[in-house]
Amino acid sequence: MLEGDLAMTTAARPEQGCTIHVCTACRRQREDLPEGYDQPGIALAAALSERMAGGDIAVVPVECLAVCKRPCTIALAADGKWTYLIGDLDTETHLDEIVGAAESFAASANGIVPWKERPASFRKGVVARVPPLPRQQGLNE
Amino acid sequence: MLEGDLAMTTAARPEQGCTIHVCTACRRQREDLPEGYDQPGIALAAALSERMAGGDIAVVPVECLAVCKRPCTIALAADGKWTYLIGDLDTETHLDEIVGAAESFAASANGIVPWKERPASFRKGVVARVPPLPRQQGLNE
Repeated sequence: MLEGDLAMTTAARPEQGCTIHVCTACRRQREDLPEGYDQPGIALAAALSERMAGGDIAVVPVECLAVCKRPCTIALAADGKWTYLIGDLDTETHLDEIVGAAESFAASANGIVPWKERPASFRKGVVARVPPLPRQQGLNE
Repeated sequence: MLEGDLAMTTAARPEQGCTIHVCTACRRQREDLPEGYDQPGIALAAALSERMAGGDIAVVPVECLAVCKRPCTIALAADGKWTYLIGDLDTETHLDEIVGAAESFAASANGIVPWKERPASFRKGVVARVPPLPRQQGLNE
């Protein structure tokens, strides 16, 4: 293996997994708190980071995914795949489902996981999806 | 210039512009039509393709962006930039604003166009946004 090949292999490794972007800005109404809200994405990002530690799925807290009305919102993304935005997620209720869905997404060829294999929270919570760029789909080649 | 450099320049050119993904699936209620709906994204994709012809902004019709409730929905995307999803757009009312917003997005460093420079339809219509992958932000390097 040439040095150039080795460098390429190393650089490509993260793309074998995926990234979970977690919105830490969106506010959830909480009458029981003095502020009247919490930011559940902060705890979700921390819990996901702990679960994903050492694997090839990156967890990245994000200031704002601009969904706002459906806390917590996350986005699953990977190079050359469809991106999925999912809202209405909660650490206590959905942590295992998010981990499973991210693993399915990472294992998929193009980011599209068959409907039946998606957890209920991902079926109900879909906010939007975006295809990979044309170059990555081979449309410009 | 070496042949390798030339190849790189050619391959990189599309990324100097951006891609407008246009959802052609979402249905808009139309009581005046026998079907009860139309699919306004089809006309929007055609109109945008005509306006963008010959430039470095690609227009790509997409089967479904999974937003559904806010036709037409589009996504602005480019390598290494934030992706923006915008809904509630209409060819007749917003074509010039979409063209202008796509040009601003293409000219921006990271996909984030200052709030004051966004047309009204893009301020009101934002569905979600997604950051570039960590590798593209230099977070993995």
